[in-house]
Amino acid sequence: MFRHTSRLQFTSKPDKPDALYAMKLQELIGGAWGEMTVSQQYLFQGWNCRVPGKYKDMIMDIATEEIGHVEMLATMVARLLEGAPSETVAGSLDGDAATAAIIGGMNPQHAIVGGGGALPSDSNGNPWMGSYIVSSGNLLADFRVNVAAESQGRLQTARLYNMTDDYGVREMLKFNLARDTMHQLQWLAAIEQLQEDGLGGVVVPDALLDEENQEHSRTLWGLSDGQHAHEGKWAQGTAPDGAHEFTYLNNPDPLGDIADAPAPDPMLYATYNTSHDGIIGKVKDKLGS
Amino acid sequence: MFRHTSRLQFTSKPDKPDALYAMKLQELIGGAWGEMTVSQQYLFQGWNCRVPGKYKDMIMDIATEEIGHVEMLATMVARLLEGAPSETVAGSLDGDAATAAIIGGMNPQHAIVGGGGALPSDSNGNPWMGSYIVSSGNLLADFRVNVAAESQGRLQTARLYNMTDDYGVREMLKFNLARDTMHQLQWLAAIEQLQEDGLGGVVVPDALLDEENQEHSRTLWGLSDGQHAHEGKWAQGTAPDGAHEFTYLNNPDPLGDIADAPAPDPMLYATYNTSHDGIIGKVKDKLGS
Amino acid sequence: MFRHTSRLQFTSKPDKPDALYAMKLQELIGGAWGEMTVSQQYLFQGWNCRVPGKYKDMIMDIATEEIGHVEMLATMVARLLEGAPSETVAGSLDGDAATAAIIGGMNPQHAIVGGGGALPSDSNGNPWMGSYIVSSGNLLADFRVNVAAESQGRLQTARLYNMTDDYGVREMLKFNLARDTMHQLQWLAAIEQLQEDGLGGVVVPDALLDEENQEHSRTLWGLSDGQHAHEGKWAQGTAPDGAHEFTYLNNPDPLGDIADAPAPDPMLYATYNTSHDGIIGKVKDKLGS
Amino acid sequence: MFRHTSRLQFTSKPDKPDALYAMKLQELIGGAWGEMTVSQQYLFQGWNCRVPGKYKDMIMDIATEEIGHVEMLATMVARLLEGAPSETVAGSLDGDAATAAIIGGMNPQHAIVGGGGALPSDSNGNPWMGSYIVSSGNLLADFRVNVAAESQGRLQTARLYNMTDDYGVREMLKFNLARDTMHQLQWLAAIEQLQEDGLGGVVVPDALLDEENQEHSRTLWGLSDGQHAHEGKWAQGTAPDGAHEFTYLNNPDPLGDIADAPAPDPMLYATYNTSHDGIIGKVKDKLGS
Amino acid sequence: MFRHTSRLQFTSKPDKPDALYAMKLQELIGGAWGEMTVSQQYLFQGWNCRVPGKYKDMIMDIATEEIGHVEMLATMVARLLEGAPSETVAGSLDGDAATAAIIGGMNPQHAIVGGGGALPSDSNGNPWMGSYIVSSGNLLADFRVNVAAESQGRLQTARLYNMTDDYGVREMLKFNLARDTMHQLQWLAAIEQLQEDGLGGVVVPDALLDEENQEHSRTLWGLSDGQHAHEGKWAQGTAPDGAHEFTYLNNPDPLGDIADAPAPDPMLYATYNTSHDGIIGKVKDKLGS
Amino acid sequence: MFRHTSRLQFTSKPDKPDALYAMKLQELIGGAWGEMTVSQQYLFQGWNCRVPGKYKDMIMDIATEEIGHVEMLATMVARLLEGAPSETVAGSLDGDAATAAIIGGMNPQHAIVGGGGALPSDSNGNPWMGSYIVSSGNLLADFRVNVAAESQGRLQTARLYNMTDDYGVREMLKFNLARDTMHQLQWLAAIEQLQEDGLGGVVVPDALLDEENQEHSRTLWGLSDGQHAHEGKWAQGTAPDGAHEFTYLNNPDPLGDIADAPAPDPMLYATYNTSHDGIIGKVKDKLGS
Repeated sequence: MFRHTSRLQFTSKPDKPDALYAMKLQELIGGAWGEMTVSQQYLFQGWNCRVPGKYKDMIMDIATEEIGHVEMLATMVARLLEGAPSETVAGSLDGDAATAAIIGGMNPQHAIVGGGGALPSDSNGNPWMGSYIVSSGNLLADFRVNVAAESQGRLQTARLYNMTDDYGVREMLKFNLARDTMHQLQWLAAIEQLQEDGLGGVVVPDALLDEENQEHSRTLWGLSDGQHAHEGKWAQGTAPDGAHEFTYLNNPDPLGDIADAPAPDPMLYATYNTSHDGIIGKVKDKLGS
Repeated sequence: MFRHTSRLQFTSKPDKPDALYAMKLQELIGGAWGEMTVSQQYLFQGWNCRVPGKYKDMIMDIATEEIGHVEMLATMVARLLEGAPSETVAGSLDGDAATAAIIGGMNPQHAIVGGGGALPSDSNGNPWMGSYIVSSGNLLADFRVNVAAESQGRLQTARLYNMTDDYGVREMLKFNLARDTMHQLQWLAAIEQLQEDGLGGVVVPDALLDEENQEHSRTLWGLSDGQHAHEGKWAQGTAPDGAHEFTYLNNPDPLGDIADAPAPDPMLYATYNTSHDGIIGKVKDKLGS
Repeated sequence: MFRHTSRLQFTSKPDKPDALYAMKLQELIGGAWGEMTVSQQYLFQGWNCRVPGKYKDMIMDIATEEIGHVEMLATMVARLLEGAPSETVAGSLDGDAATAAIIGGMNPQHAIVGGGGALPSDSNGNPWMGSYIVSSGNLLADFRVNVAAESQGRLQTARLYNMTDDYGVREMLKFNLARDTMHQLQWLAAIEQLQEDGLGGVVVPDALLDEENQEHSRTLWGLSDGQHAHEGKWAQGTAPDGAHEFTYLNNPDPLGDIADAPAPDPMLYATYNTSHDGIIGKVKDKLGS
Repeated sequence: MFRHTSRLQFTSKPDKPDALYAMKLQELIGGAWGEMTVSQQYLFQGWNCRVPGKYKDMIMDIATEEIGHVEMLATMVARLLEGAPSETVAGSLDGDAATAAIIGGMNPQHAIVGGGGALPSDSNGNPWMGSYIVSSGNLLADFRVNVAAESQGRLQTARLYNMTDDYGVREMLKFNLARDTMHQLQWLAAIEQLQEDGLGGVVVPDALLDEENQEHSRTLWGLSDGQHAHEGKWAQGTAPDGAHEFTYLNNPDPLGDIADAPAPDPMLYATYNTSHDGIIGKVKDKLGS
Repeated sequence: MFRHTSRLQFTSKPDKPDALYAMKLQELIGGAWGEMTVSQQYLFQGWNCRVPGKYKDMIMDIATEEIGHVEMLATMVARLLEGAPSETVAGSLDGDAATAAIIGGMNPQHAIVGGGGALPSDSNGNPWMGSYIVSSGNLLADFRVNVAAESQGRLQTARLYNMTDDYGVREMLKFNLARDTMHQLQWLAAIEQLQEDGLGGVVVPDALLDEENQEHSRTLWGLSDGQHAHEGKWAQGTAPDGAHEFTYLNNPDPLGDIADAPAPDPMLYATYNTSHDGIIGKVKDKLGS
Repeated sequence: MFRHTSRLQFTSKPDKPDALYAMKLQELIGGAWGEMTVSQQYLFQGWNCRVPGKYKDMIMDIATEEIGHVEMLATMVARLLEGAPSETVAGSLDGDAATAAIIGGMNPQHAIVGGGGALPSDSNGNPWMGSYIVSSGNLLADFRVNVAAESQGRLQTARLYNMTDDYGVREMLKFNLARDTMHQLQWLAAIEQLQEDGLGGVVVPDALLDEENQEHSRTLWGLSDGQHAHEGKWAQGTAPDGAHEFTYLNNPDPLGDIADAPAPDPMLYATYNTSHDGIIGKVKDKLGS
């Protein structure tokens, strides 16, 4: 169960409205790597966590914080939209380039749909989607997604920091940047912790390593004609798990047979050349159908 | 530019058709973490790469391989669908539980839309989406997504391996598991390489670290009442970047002010209580609007 | 079955083209609360209606009208797009702010995809979706959605009315505003009619009221620290159904147990700490698995 | 800012696992009218609310509660999925109809993607979308959406209540039904409160009523040939706002002119019959282009 | 403007309910090639048509018919869902394979969301989307899409015809098949008419044919190693426009330079190897930036 | 299996950056009719093709080429974005209309998400979707979609050609236009080839023509009141298949009965007027339920 306090986690006040920037800032609310994503991702991972104790508690701590980050950003967007030009347009553009940029560029749904408030969508107006998040039940697999999410998130925040010189906006983004730094480090530390606790190795999942076709678990297939791929650490020397020696296969031949699809069920009316019956028939026999 | 050979990268032949398994295997084609995702993600990252040489060449090698993985899986799905029950249903269910499961459970679009072929969608029939992928231009941020993608991908492949005992399907999946192992290791090695080459640190991006609010880049906020979150490596000791000392803030107070939205433009007809003008007016003044 | 007349329900002629306004007006065509939504929603509700007679006939009347509203708006958008700047851009921007706003802000798909015609999408270019509508079979539940749809629709129309001073556009919008007024009143009257006819109460559905946990059907849980929630009619006095007395629970304790997820199937490779077997094992036993 | 307690708002324990029911219950988590919808909708409405005091506080109370409802349902789904058949299928279907239904019908992503946990999607596997929610800034318009959401939500919960006889599931649903009853009543009371406080009338928004084409704000257009539409309260007598007298127009003529689209920009290559230049040219002139 | 009659265009009565078939039949309502698609596609094409007279009138005839087809199918789905098993499941599966298939396979939203009525979605439950349709303003380009839509539509209808032996369903589908035949022929005839009327050639649009790089408008690039592509009419002889002679280029070399992306703006933090400045700098100079 | 060469199929170099045009050009990458669509569509059709030899080989030739077209366009977009204004905005707009258009109009995700690179989305920022493509197994049905796709593609390319005067961009588009011409001709020739080879007729599929209701396979239903629809070749004379004589039915009566939905399952709580039991009951009996 959750509780709410009316105070924001950190100050979220722009020095002045800026409808264009409000449009861009939506990326941090409803974008694929925005705060709706991390809050929902951590919530589902926490609810789905089967290791009671420090892991579950830590995930719920950060999940709960992230809901408050959506709140900070939504409040900032509403404040940036104050006085956005929703009125009659006529005559307002004579020679005024700044207004032209705002009128041409602001998110029209900020006025028409949101009435001056934030939207659950990204900087192009695409609605947030549940498919942005994952909770697989495997903590190492998921923590790697979390590291990635905080990395893309801090990168986007840094770019947005450079797109404004509003003091108040930057104050909030300095806090967000710091939290993204913390959260990257937190998930990297959590991966180390999993490995210390024997709950994860290097390859995820650490199962079926004996069953898999080990001849193919250490080779980089050279399928592009660039000349330098073999020069990296990924094509020579010992792999990060200490258990594989990388090799580079330059321009290797395929190992499979000719790709074809089986003879169709006639009631599906797929195009089928009966003169090829001989060949395809044999394939069918082999498949045991 | 690309070229194609009619032979598959590896053998892709089931021992016998299995329409239910074909439905499940779609997750590896068009799911959020399937082969369409990694092929398109690596292609866009490669095209967008600004470091000619070993990085770009390596990305294009693996991107090109992954298109062939979609091909292997699509071929497998078509072969698994051979003879799927698309005909008149009446009478076919008397006491036959296995057929009941297939008729109730197979993806109806495999017959109606695909005519017995694979679809560009996941195991629930959701179409693949461009928003599943990212190419940010920052190699460390993107390689972390790639590690995550190969981890989720191998996890799903391992689960699907356990859901069949078809020898032919398992032979292909053993190859896929091995390639996923290789690709996890490859991206982990590539991250090491970036750091060796001075193209990435631990926190991404390695900019604005001085500008950010450093007081908040090392603290875990305890916002859930679980008792154990402070016990992990993420709440004490030195962080993975060697530059921060983690601390745990138990149940901290918020730092911001009361969240509110500014007075609305009257022409948007947002509900507004004019008796609060005094209070809100001051906020507006402060915002400089 | 439907028939069509070439004449529009009402005049739809702008005084002059305005590509920016055409982009905004798309919200009323393909937005979540636009005319495609209400036309499709009422059609499905009508087809699904199990009360032959006045209800079904009324729903089909309004459903049929709304198809004609999409037609009016689509015609208006095509006329607003006349002469939109699709040609070579070079040189056309020297000092001309109005053209800059149009070039920067018009919907690029109006030219590239629609060839100067309307699109089935909203003001941000998101395509209309079937998930915007509902037809549940329960008329009271659906009429409440209809009241909401006509309310959001009139609100957006009113906002768009203020964003233009084109006489011809405003003439059409005055008709649309009037129809939205009528349709709000129509659905409100239909709700009264349902209640008069004994086909609906206040709570929907009017079933399971005895089965539900009545201790919890009249209390507002105070989970945010705002001090004023208890002052409203929703927290004291008799509820609108005349059968409940509202109360306010300030900062109540949770009633459930600790949230956890059960021990995982090992073949799914979810992370699981076996040292917790004791605790989780008991939960499993209790669940009877 | 938010805080979390590890205890659930109410008990959420099934008597036994049921993977098919888990699939269905997803509708209440990630469906268009599920708990993700109401939690996010109320959060955005609360953050966007411009009436500090009882309205904002009440919205945040219920918004915060709803996050906990997603938590209860996600926990229930994980517990219902315990022991779901993710293993090798072969041989398990001989004559066992119940297993056949589960294998054919369970959500494949519950195992492959979620590892036995809940997903942010509906009972058909469609991911939750931000476009399901609205926060318009106009409280009356939004509260009407909220009444509708709680009505559809209780209806779906009641249907799902009838689809199981598991005691534990029903205990939780009895609580959910009660909360849906409360929340319907709460929003209905809130609408009364708005009207009492002078913040809303009957028609939303209560603006432009003088500007709109009043001739058309009280007539039901009879455009379907059903004979009974005029018999309802929506076609005769005084409307719910007390200000309009309903009338019924049987089979009325259209009021507009012939619908046509203007002459195209030649560089868009739209098909255009120059022999019609005369007619269309006049239309263009009139439009002032 | 539109009018509606309560009678269906053609009889739509199943002999008996069949919830599984109802799920499949949704493909013809809300699938990418279903009746919602053709009705909306033709409506937008008709509204956007700039050739008054026979073309526009014909498009509106067929558009209006297709709305009635959605109506026929929606009615059929509701009738097929009569008595679908929405009740308590327990105990109902003992040995009954047919019920198992229905319970496992029916669309859960048919009961939970639609209350036994049709949904605006496809056979996998994906909602219909506006992006399924096109109205480009160019009649030849659009009529080709229409031929394709009626072809995929008749193909899917034929497949669905084979999936039932219900007399009543088949009677309706025989009508649908006939209309699809008519509509394929109608659009093919309309393409002939356009060409007779001088409103279209073979290549669409019939502009820029002189500007385009004519060396490349008649060659099939052999980029796959299959040995037979040159044997078709597409690689030799005169092309269907009578103006091109097809040729086959076996395994041709690329004509462009090395693909690379330009030096990044430093404030976007894209990874960039400054040691490559020399090379990339030249590219930048050449681009004139 | 696929291979890649680092050289582009054709030159892709703009004379100078143009962020607005980059936004528009996205339509050719990730739009419904862009290069991602044709590359994925042809790949799935090729993999699903059951006619080994010239058809399959030709499809794989063109599919492989199209992946290279996405590459050319992605490279072009990155080069057009060089130097796009991602920096601090303040002060940059004083009287500069061209910059205003760019700042207001460029795709914000080009900077925030893509770091100056191309995105897998269209000119409005909608992500590419798997539902844009089809591979039905029936070659004639699919080749008709392919003709349509190349027609819409060349139309959009021609429009975009007119929206720039950049020499380098136009050089590339001249190549693209030529390839679209070739590919339209190629698919038209392939349709002729299918018919020559006896693998397709005029109506698709060429099955069930005897079963269908032939009375209705040659009539245009006049359901709109336009006076000219009967004048076209689609309403008189012999149809393109040589087997049907078109006729026009002016304003025909419907052939079906009154549309209604059956009596609901009471546990779904659909609204149902029991006074109509008599009538509806009979319908139910007839349906055998």
